[in-house]
Amino acid sequence: MVATQPMLQVAMDTMDLDSALKTTRLVYDVVDIIEVGTILCLAEGLGAVKTIKTLYPDNLVLADVRVAEAGALISKMVFDAGANWISVLSSAALPTIETVAKEAFSKGGDVQIELQEGWTKEKANQWKALGITQVIFHKSRDSEKLGPGWDPELLGVIKSMSDEGFKVSITGNLNPGDLSVFKGIPVYSFVAGRAIRAASDPRVAAEEFKTEIQKIWQ
Amino acid sequence: MVATQPMLQVAMDTMDLDSALKTTRLVYDVVDIIEVGTILCLAEGLGAVKTIKTLYPDNLVLADVRVAEAGALISKMVFDAGANWISVLSSAALPTIETVAKEAFSKGGDVQIELQEGWTKEKANQWKALGITQVIFHKSRDSEKLGPGWDPELLGVIKSMSDEGFKVSITGNLNPGDLSVFKGIPVYSFVAGRAIRAASDPRVAAEEFKTEIQKIWQ
Repeated sequence: MVATQPMLQVAMDTMDLDSALKTTRLVYDVVDIIEVGTILCLAEGLGAVKTIKTLYPDNLVLADVRVAEAGALISKMVFDAGANWISVLSSAALPTIETVAKEAFSKGGDVQIELQEGWTKEKANQWKALGITQVIFHKSRDSEKLGPGWDPELLGVIKSMSDEGFKVSITGNLNPGDLSVFKGIPVYSFVAGRAIRAASDPRVAAEEFKTEIQKIWQ
Repeated sequence: MVATQPMLQVAMDTMDLDSALKTTRLVYDVVDIIEVGTILCLAEGLGAVKTIKTLYPDNLVLADVRVAEAGALISKMVFDAGANWISVLSSAALPTIETVAKEAFSKGGDVQIELQEGWTKEKANQWKALGITQVIFHKSRDSEKLGPGWDPELLGVIKSMSDEGFKVSITGNLNPGDLSVFKGIPVYSFVAGRAIRAASDPRVAAEEFKTEIQKIWQ
């Protein structure tokens, strides 16, 4: 079921678990989803996922491991650690994506495909045939310096994926003021990282996202 | 400098550090490169890289983190942990690959591009322009069930990348008997995982790879 109002996801891309907990303890009951970012997964291992899920059983927890290969083993580890969602790269081979989906669905979890350069609608239809409906449009951290904003062409693609039944999430250095550009699209979740983590008051920052979401998708 | 004889890399794709150490303690002075696999990096975090490098300072250590994004932070973490090499996905955006290369080279390290479906010679030339010369041809773990062997077309591509000055490494469920098919190609390294780890005597298994390499590339 696609939520009628976009969910809010806080991305914990910190270099250690304690730095993440400093933020999560303040915002867990404001946000819907806690993302254990690639950086945190690599820094601490999937024990970080286990600790976050143990602390916040009522949140959805995404292990942003960005599976490229070895889907069966990685997804088993991720769901054994208690994650609800796992991320997979759009460039992963279809058999890899299929093994991840099987493991995820067998554990009551879900799969989020991270759309990289070069993904195609044809691939998207293959994912859908596997039962995968979540995709995330990502403004690359490394590409962010190339310019702010979301160009109209990309917004059109996002809208069309949503129209085709995909649950689309949006990430990439978002601030509350960026959300209105997505008005009219039933976005599944917005991901905020530094805008919440680096705020002087992370809880207030998370609430500002929520308020903006409620205003735009009322 | 391309080694005249292929190097041997042992892949530690174990689900915990101790399982890896059971093998590495037996083979570290037979192999050239110890790979801390994606699975081990995720299981234990990059502390596994630090421990392996501390134990085996004379081996090259590859952190097989398969960077897709956030290149600057991940590569900083990886080289701070003591790795010599870092792996990056061919599907990563060029700015991501560039930030990884800068970090790697500034630390005296090297970058290995993992070739996924959809990589192109055009992209390879972009990597070379960044100073990256290592690529790895990967028979996917998830695709291995599709069939054994290396087809002649792929071997031709491997040969041509080598001719163009790339240091090519080869991985994917290799056994000593598989190596002869690469005769005539100055392979940079062969990666063996289960063939060594799961052998009744891992040291003997590693030595069999070495013997075969010396026989073929004498």
